[in-house]
Amino acid sequence: MEFSITQIAAMLGGEVAGDGSEKINMLAKIQDAKKGQISFLSNPKYEQFIYTTQASAVIVKKDFQAKKSISCSLIRVEDPYSSFTTLLEEYHKLISFQKTGIELPSFIGDHSTTGSNIYRGAFSYIGSNVKIGDNVKIYPHVFIGDNTIIGDNTILHANVKLYSGTRMGANCVIHAGAVVGSDGFGFAPQEDGTYKTIPQLGNVLIEDNVTIGANTTIDCATLLGDSTIIRKGVKMDNLIQIAHNVEIGKNTVIAAQTGISGSTKIGENCVVAGQVGIAGHLVIANNTSIGAQAGIGKSVQEEGQRLLGTPVLDVKEFFRSYAVFKKLPDLNYRLRELEKKIVDVPNHISNDSHNGSGQ
Amino acid sequence: MEFSITQIAAMLGGEVAGDGSEKINMLAKIQDAKKGQISFLSNPKYEQFIYTTQASAVIVKKDFQAKKSISCSLIRVEDPYSSFTTLLEEYHKLISFQKTGIELPSFIGDHSTTGSNIYRGAFSYIGSNVKIGDNVKIYPHVFIGDNTIIGDNTILHANVKLYSGTRMGANCVIHAGAVVGSDGFGFAPQEDGTYKTIPQLGNVLIEDNVTIGANTTIDCATLLGDSTIIRKGVKMDNLIQIAHNVEIGKNTVIAAQTGISGSTKIGENCVVAGQVGIAGHLVIANNTSIGAQAGIGKSVQEEGQRLLGTPVLDVKEFFRSYAVFKKLPDLNYRLRELEKKIVDVPNHISNDSHNGSGQ
Amino acid sequence: MEFSITQIAAMLGGEVAGDGSEKINMLAKIQDAKKGQISFLSNPKYEQFIYTTQASAVIVKKDFQAKKSISCSLIRVEDPYSSFTTLLEEYHKLISFQKTGIELPSFIGDHSTTGSNIYRGAFSYIGSNVKIGDNVKIYPHVFIGDNTIIGDNTILHANVKLYSGTRMGANCVIHAGAVVGSDGFGFAPQEDGTYKTIPQLGNVLIEDNVTIGANTTIDCATLLGDSTIIRKGVKMDNLIQIAHNVEIGKNTVIAAQTGISGSTKIGENCVVAGQVGIAGHLVIANNTSIGAQAGIGKSVQEEGQRLLGTPVLDVKEFFRSYAVFKKLPDLNYRLRELEKKIVDVPNHISNDSHNGSGQ
Repeated sequence: MEFSITQIAAMLGGEVAGDGSEKINMLAKIQDAKKGQISFLSNPKYEQFIYTTQASAVIVKKDFQAKKSISCSLIRVEDPYSSFTTLLEEYHKLISFQKTGIELPSFIGDHSTTGSNIYRGAFSYIGSNVKIGDNVKIYPHVFIGDNTIIGDNTILHANVKLYSGTRMGANCVIHAGAVVGSDGFGFAPQEDGTYKTIPQLGNVLIEDNVTIGANTTIDCATLLGDSTIIRKGVKMDNLIQIAHNVEIGKNTVIAAQTGISGSTKIGENCVVAGQVGIAGHLVIANNTSIGAQAGIGKSVQEEGQRLLGTPVLDVKEFFRSYAVFKKLPDLNYRLRELEKKIVDVPNHISNDSHNGSGQ
Repeated sequence: MEFSITQIAAMLGGEVAGDGSEKINMLAKIQDAKKGQISFLSNPKYEQFIYTTQASAVIVKKDFQAKKSISCSLIRVEDPYSSFTTLLEEYHKLISFQKTGIELPSFIGDHSTTGSNIYRGAFSYIGSNVKIGDNVKIYPHVFIGDNTIIGDNTILHANVKLYSGTRMGANCVIHAGAVVGSDGFGFAPQEDGTYKTIPQLGNVLIEDNVTIGANTTIDCATLLGDSTIIRKGVKMDNLIQIAHNVEIGKNTVIAAQTGISGSTKIGENCVVAGQVGIAGHLVIANNTSIGAQAGIGKSVQEEGQRLLGTPVLDVKEFFRSYAVFKKLPDLNYRLRELEKKIVDVPNHISNDSHNGSGQ
Repeated sequence: MEFSITQIAAMLGGEVAGDGSEKINMLAKIQDAKKGQISFLSNPKYEQFIYTTQASAVIVKKDFQAKKSISCSLIRVEDPYSSFTTLLEEYHKLISFQKTGIELPSFIGDHSTTGSNIYRGAFSYIGSNVKIGDNVKIYPHVFIGDNTIIGDNTILHANVKLYSGTRMGANCVIHAGAVVGSDGFGFAPQEDGTYKTIPQLGNVLIEDNVTIGANTTIDCATLLGDSTIIRKGVKMDNLIQIAHNVEIGKNTVIAAQTGISGSTKIGENCVVAGQVGIAGHLVIANNTSIGAQAGIGKSVQEEGQRLLGTPVLDVKEFFRSYAVFKKLPDLNYRLRELEKKIVDVPNHISNDSHNGSGQ
């Protein structure tokens, strides 16, 4: 499976400078690449490597001007990084073992249907009344509860667990060990100090093009007919907690270990960093950016804010306050020094008697 | 499966106002409910909806006084929310597919026994010398290690893992992917910088009526004969970490992503919010309430405190300090202004020379 | 399976004081031990128990001097705690059911090989082209993707998931539910607000003597040929997140629920406490100690620092600042009092007019 530099340039809509006939069989980083491999130069701080690389070809910006002689061929494109990513993607399709078919033993319940060209790994479990689209890949140890629906081209990695009634769109990827549809954390306190479990009867609805990371957990909604909702294009990292009745707006990105409490609604195109905590029953405006480890206890109404801290402040305000926090012992010392001086100021000058503090 | 409004009122010990003969086939929120459905009104801020709802019946407080005309029937009870919860619970039992029987293939080791009316899902694994009570539900991909005991009516959702020697009470629910009995994190530093593993020989003891969330992890105790203990009625959310030799007191509630370090003992009826961290070898008094993302590094001796921050403070103190934290740049500015003024005060008045600061 | 006190002393290189002929059949804590059991005394605060224990033997320090009469035999050693640990370890090997053999059904793909004396639990899944060493234990529901290599004596507990291409060394232990090799969190923002998935083609490399906790997740590297690397002797607790292209230096210890972002390199012999967050593309020097819940946003260049807070400070500085943080409302009050006094100082003395503040 080889392509010439000219063929690759054509795939990328780029222009060849140098010999276009050489064959490429691998992608590599510019500092590591060898003959027969292709790399890219996007960040100027790596420019030095283009003069020494052994790569056969390097993808560069349209307007790249070499400062020394270069031994490799160049492919000039608008955006070298994006072009390289596209190549990687093609390469992935070619090399990855495209799993299809049914490995045994695997389990499928009554009245369940699967589309064409699907993979069902050994020890995968599909309950009853399940509908699975075309090209779906179900890895080993996946559990799919009753009455679940899964759209076309979705990939469930090893041991993903979908509770009964989950609705999943097309082109989703769920990574190993993630849990979708576990009971929301709902308990009614009783007079004797115990808690009574509030039945959790809703489900989880995941729209198209959603990615969910390894060992992430998403609880179902409380009431029958209600859903915890992950809108289309949402990308979630590993070990995230999404509580019951939460809604995540489309194209929002959430990094690892963040937790979102019950009934909170996150807007569209938000960026939530890692280990963030968001309390329940809040609304977070579109385009909100939340820094790592932040804690949010109130709704965010204005769009486009950048927030940090616990509880959150505007990110610049947080850093300004934190800069002083670091110097608090000094501040305290300076204040004490002033107090000493003022105490020493004779009464008839400092006018202590006027403000009644009695010091 | 339908009941008349009168039948439902009887089940709830309530009183019907209006037509009691209509049939109810579904539960719904007051703003969404349609004909044939029942809802409830508990929070006064939803009162507006009772005048427009299409529900056939609404459960209200005994002393509810309508301010406008109402078209639905009412069921008057002491506590509408609790009554609705009870209904949900009944409904759940009726609609949920009551799994029983043994799906194949599934595995059970030597000398293991199971009670009556149990469910063993396909690909579930039960080791040797395991004792399982009546009405236990073991979903697909559950792993139960050797020498484990499980009480009546307990539910282990898909892919729960119980290491060897776990003791579980009755009426517990463990959600998908949770791990019980993994090795405590114990390593003895060696002179060459490496760590030697300290064998973890204890187990985990879970009493009755405990709920454990999805992908939560509970480590075993270190010494043979010791247990990490979860007392009865404890409710734990998803992705929680409980280290070796921890004890959680009865009826304590812990929200998602909280971590409790080794040998710490949490009291009874505590409420621990999400993403809290508690250090090792501490004792936390009964009825302690710990706010989200708090960090606890010292034992809490006085009962009933409400704590927040890292390290924790009384919740009111934390917010008072944080209110000033937000204004620290301003505080710093004000202090500098004062310093300028004081420096400018002539020596014989400010008496600088007396305190020896030399400024 | 019993040993005499003399035999045990010989195993530990210790010296017997008292009767060495009695048989020992169990290990226990000094306050709980009974006849036929052995315990140890290391921490002086437990010394009281040696005068009342029913243990047949207690391991003590070489120079231990009894203050009262003692009824048990003693084994005198250099380090009682370490000796007891060694005994525990031996005991563990003797009592633990040494799983070997192949339980059915289990799955193994084409061209995969396994060494001698291995255990393959029921419902375990081994893909194609996998190489597994001697004495490896693969518990039920383990998933091993294609092209994976696993060294001798490694233990994969129930339901561990290794994505294709993982490389694991010898003498490793991975606890239940951990995921190795899931996709890194890489998405390229598009002009229409959606994100395009960047294919993740690298793998994870785990060297010898590594321990990984339950439900921890480790992402693969982005580029083909790159690895996320866990160096030898690393010990990781439960529910940790390791992002793509991270490298953890040898003998570094990481506590539960910590998260490390993409491409960060942690040095050797670091100690990272629980719930720590470390941003991406950083370098953390060797021997760094990071306190619980800390947040690191910049590289740490100087070795041997102890850090705490978000963002981190030197641990002593953090506590000094935090001590003042607790008193901020008081500080603010004191500052206001001073301001009142100064405002009241007549102009010709405080010289307000000179600094132009106009107050």
